[in-house]
Amino acid sequence: MRNIRLTIAYDGTDFHGWQRQPKAPTIQSCLEAALERIVEHAVKVVAAGRTDAGVHAAKQVANFKTSSRIPCLNLTKAVNDLLPPTVRVKEAQEAPQDFHARYAARSKIYRYRILQAQVCSPFIARFVYPYPYPLDRRRMAEAARLIEGRHDFASFGGSCGTNYDVPPESPSSTVRELLASRTLWRARASILAYEVRGNGFLHHMVRNIVGTLIEVGRSKLEPSDMVHILEARDRRLAGPTAPALGLCLMGVEY
Amino acid sequence: MRNIRLTIAYDGTDFHGWQRQPKAPTIQSCLEAALERIVEHAVKVVAAGRTDAGVHAAKQVANFKTSSRIPCLNLTKAVNDLLPPTVRVKEAQEAPQDFHARYAARSKIYRYRILQAQVCSPFIARFVYPYPYPLDRRRMAEAARLIEGRHDFASFGGSCGTNYDVPPESPSSTVRELLASRTLWRARASILAYEVRGNGFLHHMVRNIVGTLIEVGRSKLEPSDMVHILEARDRRLAGPTAPALGLCLMGVEY
Repeated sequence: MRNIRLTIAYDGTDFHGWQRQPKAPTIQSCLEAALERIVEHAVKVVAAGRTDAGVHAAKQVANFKTSSRIPCLNLTKAVNDLLPPTVRVKEAQEAPQDFHARYAARSKIYRYRILQAQVCSPFIARFVYPYPYPLDRRRMAEAARLIEGRHDFASFGGSCGTNYDVPPESPSSTVRELLASRTLWRARASILAYEVRGNGFLHHMVRNIVGTLIEVGRSKLEPSDMVHILEARDRRLAGPTAPALGLCLMGVEY
Repeated sequence: MRNIRLTIAYDGTDFHGWQRQPKAPTIQSCLEAALERIVEHAVKVVAAGRTDAGVHAAKQVANFKTSSRIPCLNLTKAVNDLLPPTVRVKEAQEAPQDFHARYAARSKIYRYRILQAQVCSPFIARFVYPYPYPLDRRRMAEAARLIEGRHDFASFGGSCGTNYDVPPESPSSTVRELLASRTLWRARASILAYEVRGNGFLHHMVRNIVGTLIEVGRSKLEPSDMVHILEARDRRLAGPTAPALGLCLMGVEY
């Protein structure tokens, strides 16, 4: 069996997330259906990160096993012909037999985009969270940096179980390491982006961090509260979960 | 009655064009319905250019009359709250009583975007025409420039009547003036853009020009054929109509 590694981009707006569900359209089921028509056997696609409903990906990584001999370039073209334009395989390549897109991932990069404008252009409306109220970006930048490093992120975990996205070395822990956590202001586009690179993320973790950063930006919390929230290990202390549409999986590192 | 001038952006993907139709969703009907709820009387919105189904606008200009005293800033916010995110009023302002968005327009700027890449990113898929085959950009640039100036564009008019978008001084003619007609290559995005500024456009004219430029780019026509096609005044000589999704009304000059 060959092991094929895929790099995938998608607009998550019309999907119920990555993971296959019995009755709702998901990226995984959409991809598997297209691949099965090409390779003519059942296919199971494993992704590096199981993104939630409405979340996008610029460079999701996934892999699947196949007995088909179709060259990778032909596979890419064929699968894109079958997929909707909202899902694209950017690249397919041969991977070692033991490559597993999720277990082998060392880190993932997510970007969350907040639009600081009175009117949101229809050309980016699917991909940014419009927040037209004032935000103190300096406070948010400081808050974002305070959670870099290895911490117990229980306070920023969602309610759907803590070990959703598990780094292999610590299957039941809520400890994760953020290698970078920072905000970036793109003045021309009026977009405040939050970029985070980590070895793993709890369910809703990025969106909960963003929701908390917004509370800091609107002066409902102090930047230093990020540390207190981390230490308390209590989800109720963090801000609300920011909407899915602003979030995009930017890449996976192996 | 006040005369209100609107600057409007829209993603035309899900609309049957600008102009009101009995049973299909259009930008005009969508806008009028939202405005009527705010000003509480019947509204007729006149646009500078009646874009076709699937065509987008970054800065469409329109106007409507109202007896309402609602300030322009409040109107903008209220109408955007009622509109879908695919249609945005960017600005509303008081206009002179005799301002007419269509008759007063001196020129309009359109941009058509062709994606020259094997895979089209889902983040721009609604707004570019994916054409992954080789195009000779130098030939296309030359061809585009050859139609600048005042010409009879009958060969580039659509089949739905020639006086669709009529400059006031020549109501039944197919003569238009292109003040600029050029291609631009954005290497980083792999996008070949055609930008055209003219005092008026026949139905499907920009898309017919682009379809013909593509024929020049793939060496089915010579750049100099643009002149021959113009002179012949025969729609059958020009290339096919390029798809709507690549076209965007970029602005209107008064």
